[in-house]
Amino acid sequence: MSAIPEDFVNQTTRLSEDVTGPFPNSRKIYVQGSQAGVRVPMREIAQDVTHAFDGDEENPPIYVYDTSGPYTDPNAEIDLLKGLPPLREAWIEARGDTETLSGPTSEFGQNRQSDPELAHLRFEHIRTPRRAKPGANVTQMHYARQGIITPEMEFVAIRENMRLDELRQDPRYAKLLRQHPGQSFGANLPEEITPEFVRDEVASGRAIIPANINHPEAEPMIIGRNFRVKINTNIGNSAVTSSIAEEVEKMVWSARWGGDTLMDLSTGKNIHETREWILRNAPMPIGTVPIYQALEKVDGKSEELTWEMFRDTLIEQAEQGVDYFTIHAGVRLAYVPLTAQRLTGIVSRGGSIMAKWCLAHHEESFLYTHFAEICEIMKAYDVAFSLGDGLRPGCLADANDAAQFGELETLGELTKFAWEQDVQVMIEGPGHVPMQMIKENMDKELHDCYEAPFYTLGPLVTDIAPGYDHITSGIGAAQIGWYGTAMLCYVTPKEHLGLPNKEDVRTGIITYKLAAHAADLAKGLPGAQLQDNALSKARFEFRWDDQFNLSLDPDLAREYHDETMPKQAHKVA
Amino acid sequence: MSAIPEDFVNQTTRLSEDVTGPFPNSRKIYVQGSQAGVRVPMREIAQDVTHAFDGDEENPPIYVYDTSGPYTDPNAEIDLLKGLPPLREAWIEARGDTETLSGPTSEFGQNRQSDPELAHLRFEHIRTPRRAKPGANVTQMHYARQGIITPEMEFVAIRENMRLDELRQDPRYAKLLRQHPGQSFGANLPEEITPEFVRDEVASGRAIIPANINHPEAEPMIIGRNFRVKINTNIGNSAVTSSIAEEVEKMVWSARWGGDTLMDLSTGKNIHETREWILRNAPMPIGTVPIYQALEKVDGKSEELTWEMFRDTLIEQAEQGVDYFTIHAGVRLAYVPLTAQRLTGIVSRGGSIMAKWCLAHHEESFLYTHFAEICEIMKAYDVAFSLGDGLRPGCLADANDAAQFGELETLGELTKFAWEQDVQVMIEGPGHVPMQMIKENMDKELHDCYEAPFYTLGPLVTDIAPGYDHITSGIGAAQIGWYGTAMLCYVTPKEHLGLPNKEDVRTGIITYKLAAHAADLAKGLPGAQLQDNALSKARFEFRWDDQFNLSLDPDLAREYHDETMPKQAHKVA
Repeated sequence: MSAIPEDFVNQTTRLSEDVTGPFPNSRKIYVQGSQAGVRVPMREIAQDVTHAFDGDEENPPIYVYDTSGPYTDPNAEIDLLKGLPPLREAWIEARGDTETLSGPTSEFGQNRQSDPELAHLRFEHIRTPRRAKPGANVTQMHYARQGIITPEMEFVAIRENMRLDELRQDPRYAKLLRQHPGQSFGANLPEEITPEFVRDEVASGRAIIPANINHPEAEPMIIGRNFRVKINTNIGNSAVTSSIAEEVEKMVWSARWGGDTLMDLSTGKNIHETREWILRNAPMPIGTVPIYQALEKVDGKSEELTWEMFRDTLIEQAEQGVDYFTIHAGVRLAYVPLTAQRLTGIVSRGGSIMAKWCLAHHEESFLYTHFAEICEIMKAYDVAFSLGDGLRPGCLADANDAAQFGELETLGELTKFAWEQDVQVMIEGPGHVPMQMIKENMDKELHDCYEAPFYTLGPLVTDIAPGYDHITSGIGAAQIGWYGTAMLCYVTPKEHLGLPNKEDVRTGIITYKLAAHAADLAKGLPGAQLQDNALSKARFEFRWDDQFNLSLDPDLAREYHDETMPKQAHKVA
Repeated sequence: MSAIPEDFVNQTTRLSEDVTGPFPNSRKIYVQGSQAGVRVPMREIAQDVTHAFDGDEENPPIYVYDTSGPYTDPNAEIDLLKGLPPLREAWIEARGDTETLSGPTSEFGQNRQSDPELAHLRFEHIRTPRRAKPGANVTQMHYARQGIITPEMEFVAIRENMRLDELRQDPRYAKLLRQHPGQSFGANLPEEITPEFVRDEVASGRAIIPANINHPEAEPMIIGRNFRVKINTNIGNSAVTSSIAEEVEKMVWSARWGGDTLMDLSTGKNIHETREWILRNAPMPIGTVPIYQALEKVDGKSEELTWEMFRDTLIEQAEQGVDYFTIHAGVRLAYVPLTAQRLTGIVSRGGSIMAKWCLAHHEESFLYTHFAEICEIMKAYDVAFSLGDGLRPGCLADANDAAQFGELETLGELTKFAWEQDVQVMIEGPGHVPMQMIKENMDKELHDCYEAPFYTLGPLVTDIAPGYDHITSGIGAAQIGWYGTAMLCYVTPKEHLGLPNKEDVRTGIITYKLAAHAADLAKGLPGAQLQDNALSKARFEFRWDDQFNLSLDPDLAREYHDETMPKQAHKVA
């Protein structure tokens, strides 16, 4: 019998229909790879025929990248209490370089597991954690450097390709595949993404596949500038019991609209349990900022943070399955005074916590001094670094200053060190930057961090539009994505003002999907223009339903249309 | 006694309070010029003090460009039945180069005025139209080339400067005036805008001041790449009686949020009367697409259009006071076949009307063949050309093709001709263009059209986001504004889907205001960063009210904040 009270179960395990309903005129397909269990989901959107005087013209189905996981598959059995099927488990097992632990090895993880007061909100089917065997390194980068093409890499190659090789052979797509040449600023976008190409990109550090061995539920994806530009979404709330349900629903909602990865920024007393529910049900890689949880453990007193308890937090989260950690190891003591003359000081929460710690102890940051030990943890579970930009500018005035760029240079140094341990790395970037200064950020990151994937928050290109900061930042995001940023962290309309609700999350995601897509088009990613061409043809031919169905947000497009032109007649004109 | 029925008056002459209420913590100020009647409105936003341990710090008022007209001036008497005060009348009169006609000289204008059936919706206080004396040329360009600094030019200079010269002398602004150097792509942005600079820009054709002598109510503004980037909004409905009220309200609403100019795209049977109401109450220049009305006159049959009735339409509208005409004179017969292989053919309504006409008659477009006569009309009233891009791409696939660029070259040829007659010109641009191809549009326009101001619709940088096309196009707009576009035509969330409501208009305007501002910042327009810096400082100091008040949309910022953090305590934290 379950220890979870029935009302909690009812609340937590039922997703609303708007979160799981299938997309209009779409079906989920799976493309098989050559390695066992490689079965890559895509969404196929069917189209109506075009009626012309000289007969009907068939409009072929369009395939779109699908982040929604099993939730939109009517054949999948969804049971949030059990979690998603662990699709990567057999692959991890087969590599033979991991061992199953008897239980959590972190002190905090052990306490939470044995605390009877948490039984009512604990995820029931917790798997015992897995860890690299002593001396082993289980990162995708390590395998790549051994010349091994993992099933994860093949999965990613198929997923990025979106059947483009087949479509090119099919005459129905000939006109729709026309595409303008891109301007790639040095990105290398091959006509076909092969598993070997993926391996090489991961080996070089130009791309990462965030894939913790304790998160086998996730569908592999890749972050690198020679692949589709990705977007990250954030969720997180002060976790009271009821909000576990909300957070899980928001995660599924985020997957539905196109979130490629998700950061759980939850605070409050049940962070650990909330995270377990999210991880067990998340089809995408999950990131966290472990210092947030560490700070909770010392009741918000930055100066009381210690390496030991931070280390315990990393292990706790790595054993749950977090795929990447934001670590602000570049906030070095010497950089803190460089922010004194800023208009808005240090605005990154992690950056500000570490700056306080450094000043209180007048010591170098423990994240920096213990970086080698952090790498040991990362490689034992394959957690990727997201090296945090704790000194990012909080306003245009502070953009590209000595503090920001000093930290970026340190992140480059840390990248090099992590790569020597075969640990995967991406680099976080700003923030608030006027348009003419965006490219310098990208160029400097590519240079100082040796082409490690860049992961930016916007940037916002003005400071005067609160309430519209998804747009202000979407403008910067499209540009920096074009210049080479691999993943864009979304911003919602509530940025700077409050906590986003479900609608805000959707608005933020679609804004960032279109910005990422604009970047793909501008870089000249092969096949990127297919969906645009198909939708434009539908628009020109007044195939309204196809126009809606091919759009990033079919529901909103249909709703807006029906507000002023509700009649069916208008849709088939 | 009025011939207008009381219910119509009630409906039409009362603006809702949300359209006229003052902005929070703001007051309207006027800066006097040296010439009589030059009195330039600006909005002054007061700020709270900053409380610090070592005493209070004053935060000085911030001045923002104000397009809202007398509607936000609590001292102004607004009577929609009478219209706004004709602030330019004395200037026009003083030049002595115009004559007052006894009534409309267009056939259509005469018919409408004498039709008793229209009495119930006719604007009552119609001024008799004014026209240049025989042989005279009354364009701002003509004066500028004579070396005359008109009051309009001085007004514009003060308006663009936004008191920057004074603020620079005031130590309270020293830190707030810090600004990053821009990248201007050849724009020439002086530290101070003098009336002589304005004159020189207008004389060269690099800027226009749309200022029909029959629209003396409008507050002068300038469109050119060496000035603030402007935005245009569109209104227009199928005109049934009741919608005159709605259209006037939308015009005022558009002025409120920052529309610099407005195009009235009304269709239906009472276009003429609707336009009169709008013009008499519009503080901003008004543009139209005369071919739309001409088409109404031939019941939508393009092939029945004639030069004679088009000419009559131009005179009709010029005598009402329209400040700029979109004329698709670049859609030449020879270009039409170039669109045959396009994915979406000709999507511009004007372009498509003219293409049909050319094909039906197999003749060169009458707009092209009669261009000299059109110039004669333009210079008799000072109507500016907005040379339409009838062959603009309707999707990414068709961007930058031979049809589009062929037309652009013809627009350059027409620009040269118009300038020989001292007629003001701006050039319309696309449309749908992927990011990597935007700059080519700007560069080609500057080259082919001799730096005449570019006025673009977006461009949209992807085709897959209907419902979010304000954002998709805002991304392109910010970029092309940076590269040198002088005015951005807004796009609302309903683009491609339906007719925008009031909220859509606001969303479209704010999106374009922030895009235009991002462009100003990127170009390095002196003083552009002041508002960003002030808002950022307020944000950093938790002066929530100042943050809201300094933002482009104070109402929405406050509303979003209060949704999740309603307590006053949070606003003064």
